[in-house]
Amino acid sequence: MKGLGSQARAASRVIARASTAVKNQALLATAEAIEAATAELEAANTLDLEAGRANGLDAAMLDRLALTPERLQGMIEGLRQVAALPDPVGAIRDMKFLPSGIQVGRMRVPLGVIGIIYESRPNVTVEAASLCLKAGNACILRGGSESIHSNQAIAACLRRGLAAAGLPDQVVQVVETTDRAAVGALITMPEYVDVIVPRGGKGLIERISREARVPVIKHLDGICHVYVDDRADLDKAEAICFNAKTHRYGVCNAMETLLVHEAVAAEFLPRMALRYAQKDVELRGCPATCALLPQAIAASEQDWSTEYLAPILSIRVVADMDAAIEHINRFSSQHTDAMVSEDYTRARRFLAEVDSSSVMINASTRFADGFEYGLGAEIGISTDKIHARGPVGLEGLTSEKYVVFGDGHIRQ
Amino acid sequence: MKGLGSQARAASRVIARASTAVKNQALLATAEAIEAATAELEAANTLDLEAGRANGLDAAMLDRLALTPERLQGMIEGLRQVAALPDPVGAIRDMKFLPSGIQVGRMRVPLGVIGIIYESRPNVTVEAASLCLKAGNACILRGGSESIHSNQAIAACLRRGLAAAGLPDQVVQVVETTDRAAVGALITMPEYVDVIVPRGGKGLIERISREARVPVIKHLDGICHVYVDDRADLDKAEAICFNAKTHRYGVCNAMETLLVHEAVAAEFLPRMALRYAQKDVELRGCPATCALLPQAIAASEQDWSTEYLAPILSIRVVADMDAAIEHINRFSSQHTDAMVSEDYTRARRFLAEVDSSSVMINASTRFADGFEYGLGAEIGISTDKIHARGPVGLEGLTSEKYVVFGDGHIRQ
Repeated sequence: MKGLGSQARAASRVIARASTAVKNQALLATAEAIEAATAELEAANTLDLEAGRANGLDAAMLDRLALTPERLQGMIEGLRQVAALPDPVGAIRDMKFLPSGIQVGRMRVPLGVIGIIYESRPNVTVEAASLCLKAGNACILRGGSESIHSNQAIAACLRRGLAAAGLPDQVVQVVETTDRAAVGALITMPEYVDVIVPRGGKGLIERISREARVPVIKHLDGICHVYVDDRADLDKAEAICFNAKTHRYGVCNAMETLLVHEAVAAEFLPRMALRYAQKDVELRGCPATCALLPQAIAASEQDWSTEYLAPILSIRVVADMDAAIEHINRFSSQHTDAMVSEDYTRARRFLAEVDSSSVMINASTRFADGFEYGLGAEIGISTDKIHARGPVGLEGLTSEKYVVFGDGHIRQ
Repeated sequence: MKGLGSQARAASRVIARASTAVKNQALLATAEAIEAATAELEAANTLDLEAGRANGLDAAMLDRLALTPERLQGMIEGLRQVAALPDPVGAIRDMKFLPSGIQVGRMRVPLGVIGIIYESRPNVTVEAASLCLKAGNACILRGGSESIHSNQAIAACLRRGLAAAGLPDQVVQVVETTDRAAVGALITMPEYVDVIVPRGGKGLIERISREARVPVIKHLDGICHVYVDDRADLDKAEAICFNAKTHRYGVCNAMETLLVHEAVAAEFLPRMALRYAQKDVELRGCPATCALLPQAIAASEQDWSTEYLAPILSIRVVADMDAAIEHINRFSSQHTDAMVSEDYTRARRFLAEVDSSSVMINASTRFADGFEYGLGAEIGISTDKIHARGPVGLEGLTSEKYVVFGDGHIRQ
């Protein structure tokens, strides 16, 4: 791993200086290489799928592992989209003259070397590599052992793309070993790796955060709330609560807990329960909820801190917005929380007082996503506060340095 | 320490919501409390100074420890300046409509709880507390054991200021124990502390970075370079190189290594050496430098990576700007590096290719400072790339969350 790290560091200096045109050429050439290598990629993926079946992977894991024609097409389109994004590197903001006469501004620069550690989905290899490259970084990718053949075949396409643009292979390196010690080495080389982005289950991310000696941009749970205020438009509330829970279940920005103002609970909850019944969503309620909804089962204390990622919803009736905010700031994972209300003053307070990476008024939590936010791409969603918070796009893979212009200026 | 942490977390929720007026009131009332407590502060400081003398602290340490009338006045003025700064909290930027119809922007928010670990200078207690408070954060301050009485007396003034504004005491907590284990506890409580800012010597910062389980905004060496190009205006170069080395010696933004293009070395170096001779600056040069300057002694390999913080300068003659950039990217601590040149294309390249937190053209490295950059204040200078880089002001003590406005919008 030290060798990989040292090569990545050297390559990071080359890619940091590469022009936008050269980086885009590498991305587009990789897209072409993937298009040309369909048979090769499918063969490699078949090896992984066969091994996965032999090793007893479950259906969900095998599904994530499969490189279907649609996913291959998605990888190709993703590369073209990243090529079309504006280059963040070199942008200068806030350039201004200061009393001493110097001119100071901030220039966006690559971070250097990024380590990505991820699980079964092989398309992450292309997504992560393309974003790191566009932001001027070298990267070291360490995918799951179950997708090793697919990842190596994708890595070959990336190398062809880099070569077409005259960039060194080491700008994108895919770890070839499935040895778990490689992860331990990758996260403890601050001299070669500037930041680690883990993408995977909570166990993986917690282990990495605990052991890393390098900064980690991490994404833990998404325990997201919608609070329906007594000043809500209940039609909007119904649409939002249905969408936030049932649009997709296994995603971090799905609602897991519904909070309802007591003044509208008797009207809103039975109406909402009818909608959830269409989708067989299991309802777990506080005593007040259970009194209104015979189909609800009693929620335990544990429910308020559970990310179901399933057709299950916990529901609590609250006295007012303050109680809702208190519940959210106690149980939320600070990912995404929304209020439905027509009240201006409460909207202002909810925005200020809920300490989550996305805070929404009258919109579904499902919008918490780099594409929906107009970032053009997403390397992940950060639940940290330091460096990057919420959906992380190209900007999160960069830093800023100060640039100073003078004309022989000295400090007095 | 767990108790302190948990109280800080609770207080952080209060200060995060406090209005600009209330925060400013606390800052101004603290200034008044310090003004009123001069005798009390001087008595406490005398205890520290006597203990310091008894413990054999050297003159420089004792000087840093002393709360002179000028330093007390500086603390009072500093508080008033921080009160006058714009409040970063709640600022919303880049609010825009997206194709789905939602409106998305980014709101600046406090980080939460900040731990500051520092050495002898007791005025850091006020500086750090005032910046944390203005940025809406609670803080836990852990000063050096040699300044314990001074720090506790200052803490009492801070509590009076907080009380005057109706804010809880726990917004600013000064650790009362001098037990070194307190530092170990403070840097390993991610549940209570969001970021650590160490201010002190390299040993302290390295130890904290190694052991922390909380993100650290750190400031390591300042090995700063000035490169004098063959297209430099040598009058500007002389003024800059004199200022960057001799304006103050013991500071991180002082020049430690001078790089000179070989085409101007014979003209520039003897002229510059005359200036340095006025200040008794010891010159350590590469062979080419020593050939031009009989007063220079031979530099060892070690000199290129030494932060002298003293009237010593290493000098190297280089073949061209590429060689200068190569030297800088190899030996610089990525703090501040400058070029003196009138060449437009080289200036563009130097800015892009030197990977330091401040990169300057035709200005003295001594300008790398939060006040000189117009930040209004400075908690330190970060040599990290993650989160904050270069001089860190109020903005570096905050994060951003996404705010989303809809009108019943759901994701399709």
